Amino acid sequence: MQVVVIGANACGAKAACRVKRLDPNSEVILIDKSEYISYGACGIPYYVSGEIPDVNALRETSFHVIRDKKFFTDAKGLTVLTKTLVEEIDRKRKTVKVKSLESGRREEIPYDKLVIATGAKPRTLEVPGTDLKGVYYISDLGSAIELKERIARGEVEKPLIIGAGLIGLEMAEAFADLWGLSVTLLEFFPQVLPKNLDPYMARIVESHLRERNVKVELKVRVKEIVGKEGKVIGVQTEDRFYPADLVLIAVGVEPNSELAERAGLLVSPYTKGIVVNDRLQTSDPNIFAGGDCIEITHLVSGKKVVMPMGSLANRQGRVIGTNIAGGFATFKGTVGAFVMKCFDLAIGGVGLTFAQAREEGFDPGYALNNQTERSHFYPGARIAFYELIFDKKTGRVLGFQGVGPMTDGTMARIHAISSLLPRRPKVEDLLELELAYAPPFNTALDPIHDTAHVADNILKGLFQPIEWEEVLRRLKEGDQNSLILDLRHPKEAEFLLKRYPNVKQVLYQEFKYHLSEIPRDKDLILLCNSSRRAYEVARLLKGAGFERVYLPLGGVSFPRRWGEEIR
Amino acid sequence: MQVVVIGANACGAKAACRVKRLDPNSEVILIDKSEYISYGACGIPYYVSGEIPDVNALRETSFHVIRDKKFFTDAKGLTVLTKTLVEEIDRKRKTVKVKSLESGRREEIPYDKLVIATGAKPRTLEVPGTDLKGVYYISDLGSAIELKERIARGEVEKPLIIGAGLIGLEMAEAFADLWGLSVTLLEFFPQVLPKNLDPYMARIVESHLRERNVKVELKVRVKEIVGKEGKVIGVQTEDRFYPADLVLIAVGVEPNSELAERAGLLVSPYTKGIVVNDRLQTSDPNIFAGGDCIEITHLVSGKKVVMPMGSLANRQGRVIGTNIAGGFATFKGTVGAFVMKCFDLAIGGVGLTFAQAREEGFDPGYALNNQTERSHFYPGARIAFYELIFDKKTGRVLGFQGVGPMTDGTMARIHAISSLLPRRPKVEDLLELELAYAPPFNTALDPIHDTAHVADNILKGLFQPIEWEEVLRRLKEGDQNSLILDLRHPKEAEFLLKRYPNVKQVLYQEFKYHLSEIPRDKDLILLCNSSRRAYEVARLLKGAGFERVYLPLGGVSFPRRWGEEIR
Repeated sequence: MQVVVIGANACGAKAACRVKRLDPNSEVILIDKSEYISYGACGIPYYVSGEIPDVNALRETSFHVIRDKKFFTDAKGLTVLTKTLVEEIDRKRKTVKVKSLESGRREEIPYDKLVIATGAKPRTLEVPGTDLKGVYYISDLGSAIELKERIARGEVEKPLIIGAGLIGLEMAEAFADLWGLSVTLLEFFPQVLPKNLDPYMARIVESHLRERNVKVELKVRVKEIVGKEGKVIGVQTEDRFYPADLVLIAVGVEPNSELAERAGLLVSPYTKGIVVNDRLQTSDPNIFAGGDCIEITHLVSGKKVVMPMGSLANRQGRVIGTNIAGGFATFKGTVGAFVMKCFDLAIGGVGLTFAQAREEGFDPGYALNNQTERSHFYPGARIAFYELIFDKKTGRVLGFQGVGPMTDGTMARIHAISSLLPRRPKVEDLLELELAYAPPFNTALDPIHDTAHVADNILKGLFQPIEWEEVLRRLKEGDQNSLILDLRHPKEAEFLLKRYPNVKQVLYQEFKYHLSEIPRDKDLILLCNSSRRAYEVARLLKGAGFERVYLPLGGVSFPRRWGEEIR
Repeated sequence: MQVVVIGANACGAKAACRVKRLDPNSEVILIDKSEYISYGACGIPYYVSGEIPDVNALRETSFHVIRDKKFFTDAKGLTVLTKTLVEEIDRKRKTVKVKSLESGRREEIPYDKLVIATGAKPRTLEVPGTDLKGVYYISDLGSAIELKERIARGEVEKPLIIGAGLIGLEMAEAFADLWGLSVTLLEFFPQVLPKNLDPYMARIVESHLRERNVKVELKVRVKEIVGKEGKVIGVQTEDRFYPADLVLIAVGVEPNSELAERAGLLVSPYTKGIVVNDRLQTSDPNIFAGGDCIEITHLVSGKKVVMPMGSLANRQGRVIGTNIAGGFATFKGTVGAFVMKCFDLAIGGVGLTFAQAREEGFDPGYALNNQTERSHFYPGARIAFYELIFDKKTGRVLGFQGVGPMTDGTMARIHAISSLLPRRPKVEDLLELELAYAPPFNTALDPIHDTAHVADNILKGLFQPIEWEEVLRRLKEGDQNSLILDLRHPKEAEFLLKRYPNVKQVLYQEFKYHLSEIPRDKDLILLCNSSRRAYEVARLLKGAGFERVYLPLGGVSFPRRWGEEIR
């Protein structure tokens, strides 16, 4: 059997090696247009930052051998053609037509099975000036090397990043944290990570970025990248001019599906991804496709999406290898799990955001929660923030997000939810999760439990949430129809008491002795740090016949972390 | 409605508060024989160690209010009777008969619903001398305070712990790491953590304990605790005498189910746990029970077990509260998930061990794996060790264990597996797990994936595993029917080459050029650090017609970490 694999990164290299391992007598030809193959593309920001000093680290195996052409030839037994472009797939003749980018020589290579793993390319920004010197897309290792060399030579002082998605944020950190550069981050949407987080969580990240001296500009539309003598000097938006000596465009990627399309394979006009079945076969059963160039099923929404993630590409490569070698393996879809480092924060999410859930026709609700990552009595325990998105009609879990300190704790919760999410759990299923506990690692009830408790209590109508925007408005306007009850220690309540006229402090643990002081003709808004005490007092008030009782989800810790005038 | 709750720790306190929150007009009476209620019992080792300096930290809420009688009375609206013993439950009259341990006064309290949350007591060691001064069980906060005070006064130099279970190990660290004491740890079974880990994983922990100067003695049967003038001076085993000035007995706990049994409630003669249904009702539907005093279903074995874990007790308390207040909630059972700190190791597990799986009638197989916790190119990435236990007939996942550096990484993997395990996943389901990746947190394929790949390859017969004991034997005996092929760099292979005559070094990535040098009349045993390269070479040899090819699971990193003469 002769197998041709186009693209030698996560998916392609994995598929090629897996075929060869399962069927050692097969002939496997791995083709890539670059010299650099099978590198850890997700490590690029850490290479640019200098945390990974040598670019070869991204290209090495765990036992420190460079994964180059020679390695795949000798160790893996593949035939490897680098710097070779596949110009055409001839499905009738079952061949690929290739051209050497070094010699210019063309040749035709026959295949029994073909794998398309052509990856994705950066989405271009359709404004003038993207061709100026100093304007970059992080499209491959080559451009990352060039960019880093410029920084290392001291040629960059004011980098500007367009796009506050995962890559944009990782690159902002690379520039700011390790090179000490003054970074500007422009985002079209009114929040960072608009595809990944809801605003409640995103605002924590924004606040942290600003703490770390990244200039974050939201709701900004870029009109032009401005240059002088062919070099970039800044970015003009609808409102103003931002000077910059380096511009990085990170506005997403799109599938490299042109080759497949020209070969007459089905490609989605909507996602631009190559259409595959669960075995990862394209519309031609002898041709498989995987990695960033395909569309896959989102297992929460049921719709097709492109999800360019290295972890998925690796898993898809193995599935393709197994299927080509005569085995049976499937890839059913994605729940969109991600985790990322942003300075001192670990950020993660899975499933749909609130906004996405609404777009997909759900009737979403959300629960917020903050709590220490480990037992509050364990030294060094720090607070993390969580959001759970669920369907109000069915109680189905739709998504989960976490923003916490730079530990593996956020990933731990994402791991738990993402493992279960394809099985369509309900909020009550989360209550039943068994999540290991010891004080150095966790709280007795995991944050997932406590966040699900909030959701469960919402679903059961045990309290009435109120949006933080509304609470902040009533505070700032001194709304006389509202009484804001601060349930914390008088010292903690001082800040609000001094600033806002409609605040009253009543200590949580003595609340029941003060019931007679609480007016029945006002909206009562209950505040504490996490809204746990507020919830208990809401139940007490309910028992005492009070009707107009509200509490903002997540407690004061949220707006405080957003940088609002509240403590 | 009047609700009486016996026992005011994790389960009881939670149940009482939950009832009161759901039904603010109910009367809830919380009774405990101790003055200390609702404390973080799992934090005791960290209090003894001094990491948590003040015992009140274990008793505080996250907002620093002591959870004492006054707190539960004022804040939670409960009636609290501390230092009060429940002597009898009168189910006909629906009352409990209580006695004040201070005044000696007796009284009878009626209930509509009763909750039994009496916890567990330490299992006693049936040898002479357990009543000597200086012999402890960690049964409650009181004994922990006494023990710590003795250490703080400098009265302890040679502590000895009987039992190398979770508590035994946590206490060993408390004594050794923070007080610098020279600890002896005695265990009846041939390994530490015999209920939690398989030997391959336990030996890593043992080696680490020894590195940290804990004297670990396995396969030891204690005959007597020896004293002089009423004070402990040591422990006599079948083989020898161990001097000690403090002896801590940590040989497990058993349910406090006598009160329930005397009331005629069903109690299992086998587990000694109170029998409950999924709603956590006892055999009397007006009486609920939860926490360490009940037996629950093990969701892998299907059998009843006692699983004294704080996290389960908390969840059970909420279930009971919901059900008593007229709601619907269930607790279906446990998968036995745990995580613990042991010096610089994070140890976790879930499901059945290999030995337990065999006892339960499965036909278990196991896969070992070691890999860096984060991308190998990410600075500071360290190796962790994993074991997956599966049923060879059905491919069902039976258990998973991890031992790694002191991060949340081990818990992350346990969280993923424990979330899925009640749904009876197969190895192939683990291959399909979506597990978030970014270089600072994970490898592109999570360790769960890579461990499941090994299991999958075993199930599909892609290679023949060989036990490490057998490999070590053949190495040490210089077995001439075996050729041990070290596939690593010559520098790494030097150690084995120098010591053992039947070792040959052939570099992995050049192996195919050396096929003619490989004998066909010997057992070929392939070695590298993780057995990844060994697996690939095994497939290559298979393709070349070699039959007698074996590889030890997990690679050389395992026996090296056990302290074997292998590198």
